[in-house]
Amino acid sequence: MSDLQTLMTELGKRARAAARQLALTPAFDKNKALRASAQAIRIDARLILEANAKDMAAGEAKGLSKALLDRLMLNPARVEAMAKGLEEIAALPDPVGRTLAEWTRPNGLAISRVAVPLGVVGIIYESRPNVTADAAGLCLKSGNAAILRGGSESFHSSSAIMTALVGGITACGLPKEAVQMVPTTDRAAVGVMLRLSDYIDVIVPRGGKSLVARVVEESRIPLFQHLEGICHTYVDGAADLEMAKQVVLNAKMRRTGVCGATETLLVDKACAKTHLKPLVAMLIDSGCEVRGDHLAQEADCRTLPATEADWSTEYLDSIIAVKVVDGVAAAVDHINTHGSHHTEAIVTEDAKAAETFLQGCDSAIVLWNASTQFADGGEFGMGAEIGISTGKLHARGPVGVEQLCTFKYVVKGSGQVRPG
Amino acid sequence: MSDLQTLMTELGKRARAAARQLALTPAFDKNKALRASAQAIRIDARLILEANAKDMAAGEAKGLSKALLDRLMLNPARVEAMAKGLEEIAALPDPVGRTLAEWTRPNGLAISRVAVPLGVVGIIYESRPNVTADAAGLCLKSGNAAILRGGSESFHSSSAIMTALVGGITACGLPKEAVQMVPTTDRAAVGVMLRLSDYIDVIVPRGGKSLVARVVEESRIPLFQHLEGICHTYVDGAADLEMAKQVVLNAKMRRTGVCGATETLLVDKACAKTHLKPLVAMLIDSGCEVRGDHLAQEADCRTLPATEADWSTEYLDSIIAVKVVDGVAAAVDHINTHGSHHTEAIVTEDAKAAETFLQGCDSAIVLWNASTQFADGGEFGMGAEIGISTGKLHARGPVGVEQLCTFKYVVKGSGQVRPG
Repeated sequence: MSDLQTLMTELGKRARAAARQLALTPAFDKNKALRASAQAIRIDARLILEANAKDMAAGEAKGLSKALLDRLMLNPARVEAMAKGLEEIAALPDPVGRTLAEWTRPNGLAISRVAVPLGVVGIIYESRPNVTADAAGLCLKSGNAAILRGGSESFHSSSAIMTALVGGITACGLPKEAVQMVPTTDRAAVGVMLRLSDYIDVIVPRGGKSLVARVVEESRIPLFQHLEGICHTYVDGAADLEMAKQVVLNAKMRRTGVCGATETLLVDKACAKTHLKPLVAMLIDSGCEVRGDHLAQEADCRTLPATEADWSTEYLDSIIAVKVVDGVAAAVDHINTHGSHHTEAIVTEDAKAAETFLQGCDSAIVLWNASTQFADGGEFGMGAEIGISTGKLHARGPVGVEQLCTFKYVVKGSGQVRPG
Repeated sequence: MSDLQTLMTELGKRARAAARQLALTPAFDKNKALRASAQAIRIDARLILEANAKDMAAGEAKGLSKALLDRLMLNPARVEAMAKGLEEIAALPDPVGRTLAEWTRPNGLAISRVAVPLGVVGIIYESRPNVTADAAGLCLKSGNAAILRGGSESFHSSSAIMTALVGGITACGLPKEAVQMVPTTDRAAVGVMLRLSDYIDVIVPRGGKSLVARVVEESRIPLFQHLEGICHTYVDGAADLEMAKQVVLNAKMRRTGVCGATETLLVDKACAKTHLKPLVAMLIDSGCEVRGDHLAQEADCRTLPATEADWSTEYLDSIIAVKVVDGVAAAVDHINTHGSHHTEAIVTEDAKAAETFLQGCDSAIVLWNASTQFADGGEFGMGAEIGISTGKLHARGPVGVEQLCTFKYVVKGSGQVRPG
């Protein structure tokens, strides 16, 4: 066994032991530790910001994109948001021990399905330092041990946040192995981690396309898979133009670096004459590059021509692809063909068109007359999220504390045996 | 692209197209097709049994184990059970379209979580021909298209069942691609299938250890993972001896080839003096080979010595490992260390010991005073099952029609945009 294998196996064993303890820890104690961690982050805010400044300087020197730097950046408001996020998680109902269903069989067996922690959650992420606090908090609340593997870009920020968290957790008597960081920057550690199926129950990759692709290819552990967020907004023929403008502008431009940002605007042929030009002009006027089909180019001469690749691109930037489609069925087809099954919105006053869209899009989140930027666990009222899953199994859409639980069947009898 | 790749891709594309149609098919039409398939199986019963006789003869010539032959064997009762299974599935509530949760956010967004089909389910199985009917029926009911890859051992039986099914499905106007079999016996087709992640949403491996291990290693598609069923029955110090005897005998010997069969008997040190000897003697007298620790060997001289490997072996045969442990905590430790997270039972009159056991065992199903052989979707009242999952994600324990659904979030607004 290589040194790295030994190191990671030991980490996994400690996590498994901590997980067994956390699974039996009462809600009161977990919430206390979460609040203590929030306080520790506030107390350490200056240290965290100093550490982040180091990461930002290194990131700028390294030539990270604007979108990546936006993800990396912390300021006092974002640090406070992390602390508040932990307190909000503490305030959520305990997801462990809920009876999800119960019934009695004719033979008298009483069966219940009870929520229990997943066990050990591995999080592999890149530049967002707040993932450290969010992930640790969500895992703790749901009774899971966490193994965090942050990117080198956010190393100083994450380490400073981690120090605060572990201080809060251990001050409340919970095991310090409840949250662990992989103690090496060796990239090979990720490969080892992805095969530790005896000690890690689920892997959550958070980061860019190449990170996720590597994890999908190498992991022998189930994933909460977040592929790209190629999100669409479809403006239907029956859309109110003012509503369409406000939803599209927000969906694209509120924050361009988030996975719920709209990347493609589809406009119904039926309203192209009235709606296309104002929508395209609005986007360009607000500083967005528009890459469109020939109708979009005709609508505003500042539109660049779109290539086939644009329909399947997650820009994470002030760029949008624009296409005219022939009605809601064509919009659904386009989305199911080119999208990433993340989040799609329709703007329309026509309930039937909306129903066709909501049913037809094979995506985690479908919205009617609302911005795709609502694709967020907090906005859903689930507290902070560990990610948005574009996979279909177990967790789809925002992954919050309930999604970090599994269940077991508890069967109570009086000596029943199975006949036959 | 190789011929095999092309063949499988085309199969996948047809399945995806059928899945889009099935997702929107009303319950009435799906149930009609299920009942028609059941009738077709009854009408074809003689053909199915003749086909099975061919498979059995080939299996015996090939020297398949008794356990495998038991899985392969069909008789009129088992054929009728398949047909009845399909009718029972038809009678279940439709799992698609259920509102699993709904709430309204302060900003007026109305959010609901709605059950939708997974899409395309791939089933890779070995010798059990009834999997063909069960899997097809469960997928159809849950609005999924199925791609079946049966083992060569059951080829004739499965083909005959398939013919009946497709007849029933198409007679009711549903697409014949709702259920497809991989049209080649080339083993390499499995490897291609396991990477068809654009067209298959989940893979269900059904079969022996080497099949499952191959699927786990090669699949880039999420799995409903069924590892081994190393199930335990723990006889606690406070167990009623008569109940313990009846539960243990059933748990081990009712059918030894099923995954819910108990493979290890743990006996509390506190009752070893009174309970161990009668339990071991009963098992040996009923034709079970007992491999025990030194206390079990002392209790009955016919006991063979257990090796370390016996604690982690799924015999699927009339063999049991027996060990004396020091109380319920030690039993839980043994099970979490050596088990496969499938199904475990405790026999005790002590509610506190039962609670410790039910909470502590990290297994899909935990039973108190009942036989581990109840680990079965039908016995749980879920209708036929496509398998028992020992994984923790999405489906744990029996995988029935509800577990073959995922969900989407449907969000209805009135032009909301996200601030900040």
